[in-house]
Amino acid sequence: MHFTAETSSNGVIERDFTVGDVPGVLWSPAPGADRAPLVLMAHSGGQHKRAPGIVGRAQRFITGCGFHVAAIDAPGHGDRPRTPVDEQHIAVLRQAQAAGKPLGPVAAGIHLELAARAVPEWRATLDALQELPEIGAEGPVGFWGIMQGTGIGVPLVAAEPRIGAAVFGCLGQESLAEAAARITVPVEFVLQWDDEHIDRRSGLALFDAFASKEKTLHANAGGHRELPRFEADSATRFFARHLIA
Amino acid sequence: MHFTAETSSNGVIERDFTVGDVPGVLWSPAPGADRAPLVLMAHSGGQHKRAPGIVGRAQRFITGCGFHVAAIDAPGHGDRPRTPVDEQHIAVLRQAQAAGKPLGPVAAGIHLELAARAVPEWRATLDALQELPEIGAEGPVGFWGIMQGTGIGVPLVAAEPRIGAAVFGCLGQESLAEAAARITVPVEFVLQWDDEHIDRRSGLALFDAFASKEKTLHANAGGHRELPRFEADSATRFFARHLIA
Repeated sequence: MHFTAETSSNGVIERDFTVGDVPGVLWSPAPGADRAPLVLMAHSGGQHKRAPGIVGRAQRFITGCGFHVAAIDAPGHGDRPRTPVDEQHIAVLRQAQAAGKPLGPVAAGIHLELAARAVPEWRATLDALQELPEIGAEGPVGFWGIMQGTGIGVPLVAAEPRIGAAVFGCLGQESLAEAAARITVPVEFVLQWDDEHIDRRSGLALFDAFASKEKTLHANAGGHRELPRFEADSATRFFARHLIA
Repeated sequence: MHFTAETSSNGVIERDFTVGDVPGVLWSPAPGADRAPLVLMAHSGGQHKRAPGIVGRAQRFITGCGFHVAAIDAPGHGDRPRTPVDEQHIAVLRQAQAAGKPLGPVAAGIHLELAARAVPEWRATLDALQELPEIGAEGPVGFWGIMQGTGIGVPLVAAEPRIGAAVFGCLGQESLAEAAARITVPVEFVLQWDDEHIDRRSGLALFDAFASKEKTLHANAGGHRELPRFEADSATRFFARHLIA
């Protein structure tokens, strides 16, 4: 892990890093604090590690709970080069968009391909982050990611026993059901009740598939981009319940 | 409205009252506070106005938000005499219980009959409460009630324009869909994902039926009696968002 830049504002330290050729950012509470839990955040499709929905929630997790928060660019996203496969993903999505089709079914295959690359990257990133003394190998780890972040996150959390609680949502693909059935940690799952891209039944089926004894579905009226702001507070409380001893 | 008893503890004043022959209890923050919003709470079947689930949440609404909270006994419940119809309800429920049947479908008809009596009682109670100077006729009013409280509450909130926000749940009867479709105020709806008495599809259909632009479903893993405690905090925040200007 190489740190390439460091800034600090409002009591939050922001460090750019790379693990291999994957660029990421680590936000931490002011130095001198005790070891604190870590939340991994995966951005949505077409976005990047500093998307507003990531930065805003990271700020809440840090100031509200004193957590460390790490985000990396997904393959073909943000500061990363695009492979021919990535270019093909974009073309397929644009075509569906131009045809006015719901993007959920189209994205399912893309997410599977992305997850095959991204899951090992996330695990290597977590290895590196846990070597930092302010995080450590024994501390609690959470995962947050909706839409594409769920497409990558469900296989990641299924494969990664170090992650102890996860917020997912705004997605519902049958292709994720098998991985979801291997997840037993507490899950908070957000869904937009009138999502124009995600079939309601498919979203409910994904929630149903998690094997977690503690799981909560938050379904809100509104379309794909109308997730209410109070769900960010709810995610903060969810991680506070499960990551703080 | 006649007050019949008053006690006070932990900064909460508790006053027993009657409106006509309906007994109720009004919990209020310590005197001298400004006018405050009012939350009406309807208990579940077989319970009464001082059931633990009512008293515990009332305490949170008062200490967390400074609200007034009022609960009344439903017809045939608590301190009220039972009519032959009430006795028949109990017999029907006991029979279904003995046969190991889910109680949701059986309760639907009972709730309809109860609501026909209880809705006018609630409206008269609200009239009386709003004459108190510490509540007033213009202040915000919320409604909380799950199970039988939803069976009575959905027709009440549909009929009562003074109620501006409602928490319902743990019920899902097609018999309520028409009233739910007339409700447009913000709704938080809790559902137990593995409820042995309430069919999941029927619960989701009731949530779907509300015409409210802002509505949130909280579905939690677990059976009928396993509603997580954090939903009481969520209801408190819901009322804080909608009843405090």
